[in-house]
Amino acid sequence: MALVFEAGEEPMQGLLDFAKRERLTSGHFTAIGAFEEVTLGYFDWARKDYTRIAIREQVEVLSLVGDVALEGTVPKVHAHVVVGKRDGTAHGGHLLEARVRPTLEVILIQPPGHLCRRFDARSGLALIDIEEVRDAAM
Amino acid sequence: MALVFEAGEEPMQGLLDFAKRERLTSGHFTAIGAFEEVTLGYFDWARKDYTRIAIREQVEVLSLVGDVALEGTVPKVHAHVVVGKRDGTAHGGHLLEARVRPTLEVILIQPPGHLCRRFDARSGLALIDIEEVRDAAM
Amino acid sequence: MALVFEAGEEPMQGLLDFAKRERLTSGHFTAIGAFEEVTLGYFDWARKDYTRIAIREQVEVLSLVGDVALEGTVPKVHAHVVVGKRDGTAHGGHLLEARVRPTLEVILIQPPGHLCRRFDARSGLALIDIEEVRDAAM
Repeated sequence: MALVFEAGEEPMQGLLDFAKRERLTSGHFTAIGAFEEVTLGYFDWARKDYTRIAIREQVEVLSLVGDVALEGTVPKVHAHVVVGKRDGTAHGGHLLEARVRPTLEVILIQPPGHLCRRFDARSGLALIDIEEVRDAAM
Repeated sequence: MALVFEAGEEPMQGLLDFAKRERLTSGHFTAIGAFEEVTLGYFDWARKDYTRIAIREQVEVLSLVGDVALEGTVPKVHAHVVVGKRDGTAHGGHLLEARVRPTLEVILIQPPGHLCRRFDARSGLALIDIEEVRDAAM
Repeated sequence: MALVFEAGEEPMQGLLDFAKRERLTSGHFTAIGAFEEVTLGYFDWARKDYTRIAIREQVEVLSLVGDVALEGTVPKVHAHVVVGKRDGTAHGGHLLEARVRPTLEVILIQPPGHLCRRFDARSGLALIDIEEVRDAAM
């Protein structure tokens, strides 16, 4: 399924609204486009919180990869982004918020089943928890 | 579907030729591989045109994400790329052209339906236009 | 299908173990998450070998794109990664090895058919070889 965001829209809230309205229980998306500005997050392991990195200039969205998963019964959106500046250097992090300009083209697939997040005491984050998969990966 | 480009091939033209021959009306792809050289584009909002950034050295293709959409009845390919240099720094932009070496591995999926581009006066670009999706994203 | 790696796990070995146990003959995956440390590779065309780039700090995994293909009858995993440092700069390369912290969320799809790698004398690498696709791309 394709979603397109237009100039001025905030994609994290837009994706969350879409997930709630469509009652998504799982989702995986990739996107390209451009932002007028973006705030990245870097998870500071010592502080157990995100450091905010604001980029206040027009950037190409080189890749936006993320997923939709349930935390309890509520869908949550998690996405990481790589952006390119005027000089071609790439920057990126956890996507906190952004303003689209002129467009963001999102392709969303829905893997079968549910993705669920549960609180992880070590990181202080809600991580995706899949028992059978965790066993498989060991 | 997998497409593999070999040393010396130009992937943007190759993807476009493939889309035309296969009469694709929608497509989404991701790829990894390596380039002998690449020309990136950064969309200069003031000039409403792409600034060209030439990288004339062997780089890893860390991600190539793009789509195929119809502009009128003609398929168009749009892709953004992240490349890695010898020192591990990442660079990227809109993919204008590249020369593959030794390989580029592309996985293409075809979302159901058509993706269509229409001219957007504000940006001067042909953007993907999906009425129902645009409503959903607001 | 979703795979989740936990803190301390090595994802390249984990993905390979999974591919072998599930007898995958093709696969394509994307992932996001974070690493405690990672070793990138840059393919040095002159030496026909990978230069190792070690990053010994917590990084966001901004995109991990890769595939599973058969080399003879044995599945091989090939992946390229982009990571983000504390200052928001992006770095990346061929993924040689990494240690996950706190999580790596992988979405794996299985394209129909087999992907096969064959030795390529010019690069010294085993590249994906698809006769019909190669013709298509010319």
